[in-house]
Amino acid sequence: MSPRTKEQFQKMREAGRAKILDAAIFEFSRKGYNGTKIDDIATTAKVAKGSIYHYYKSKEELLEAVLDLGLQKSDEIMQQSFAASDGETFMEKFIDSTLSKPLDDLKFWRLFTSVLIQADIPEKVTKKFKSYMRNSFDQLADLFALPGEDKEKTKERTSMIAASIDGIWLHAIVFGVENYNEETTKKIFKKIFLKRNDSKGTAYVK
Amino acid sequence: MSPRTKEQFQKMREAGRAKILDAAIFEFSRKGYNGTKIDDIATTAKVAKGSIYHYYKSKEELLEAVLDLGLQKSDEIMQQSFAASDGETFMEKFIDSTLSKPLDDLKFWRLFTSVLIQADIPEKVTKKFKSYMRNSFDQLADLFALPGEDKEKTKERTSMIAASIDGIWLHAIVFGVENYNEETTKKIFKKIFLKRNDSKGTAYVK
Repeated sequence: MSPRTKEQFQKMREAGRAKILDAAIFEFSRKGYNGTKIDDIATTAKVAKGSIYHYYKSKEELLEAVLDLGLQKSDEIMQQSFAASDGETFMEKFIDSTLSKPLDDLKFWRLFTSVLIQADIPEKVTKKFKSYMRNSFDQLADLFALPGEDKEKTKERTSMIAASIDGIWLHAIVFGVENYNEETTKKIFKKIFLKRNDSKGTAYVK
Repeated sequence: MSPRTKEQFQKMREAGRAKILDAAIFEFSRKGYNGTKIDDIATTAKVAKGSIYHYYKSKEELLEAVLDLGLQKSDEIMQQSFAASDGETFMEKFIDSTLSKPLDDLKFWRLFTSVLIQADIPEKVTKKFKSYMRNSFDQLADLFALPGEDKEKTKERTSMIAASIDGIWLHAIVFGVENYNEETTKKIFKKIFLKRNDSKGTAYVK
């Protein structure tokens, strides 16, 4: 057997971390953060309890890593729209990428939301998460800004679109993704939120 | 001590039921439906385990009652708009009542959503809930219908408004209700969804 390279070790380490994170989000979602033991996560991940501590010092660190994973996935969706040249095109791309049907991702978001919504997760962890989300939101609002638009208005528009998109996914999760009509939903969002539709007598949130 | 009347017994029975339901939703949300034992619910409700069985035959019946409570609360919100005379006025009242800040209710909806979103609650129970919700939705669409409007369009509009409202509350729950601006949110919803704003050059989803 040839000796493993540094890269191979790195890859194995990453795979181990991902397996543990998957198990953590699954267990936190099923048993609640406070009802979950590191043992449960080890069993689900099929690893020794001790090996979890190679990666994470505590259950709290695991929760932090779960929330980070959600932030990272949101960022990736935002990145897909970054090539856009102005607020208007950016918003169109954002609508297209956030409302596309990511079935695998939907499983993740179901678990993620069910962790995030728990009333008894440690405030220390959620505080960090919320502060990061606020930054993300401000960035998003900057990208949505239209020339000459009042900053408050841009923020209101950004809140509305972000909440509506999350509401669409919440409904798809709860009522079944088979009822989600991707094309129609994108069309409605563009009618409501894109200014260029004004000329056609349709909608735009001023 | 004077003998208790039938009404007094009825009241006590209802109070007992409400206490158990409150405890059930709290425990289901914290520990997950499958991780919760009837014993946990009895402890939280401060009642003997046996007295829970006076009201509910099984944990599954308790879950059903929790979902029924959510449906009942949604219906009450809808009822507030029923006095409206047409689809347009009904929608305005609906926006006003669903987007008002019910702080106590928000605690309930947080727990309720966190139960509803669990991936491993029994399909038998969610099936009944979903079928009831579909009926409610159809009723809502009938009330939103505008003269001459295509039925499919009414349904799309209804889906969009319902999902957006739930998204707004999801964000209020996750990011803190102190960031929720009731007046602005209502204003934006009316701009987007009420036809009569067309004349002001603002929005309406056709």
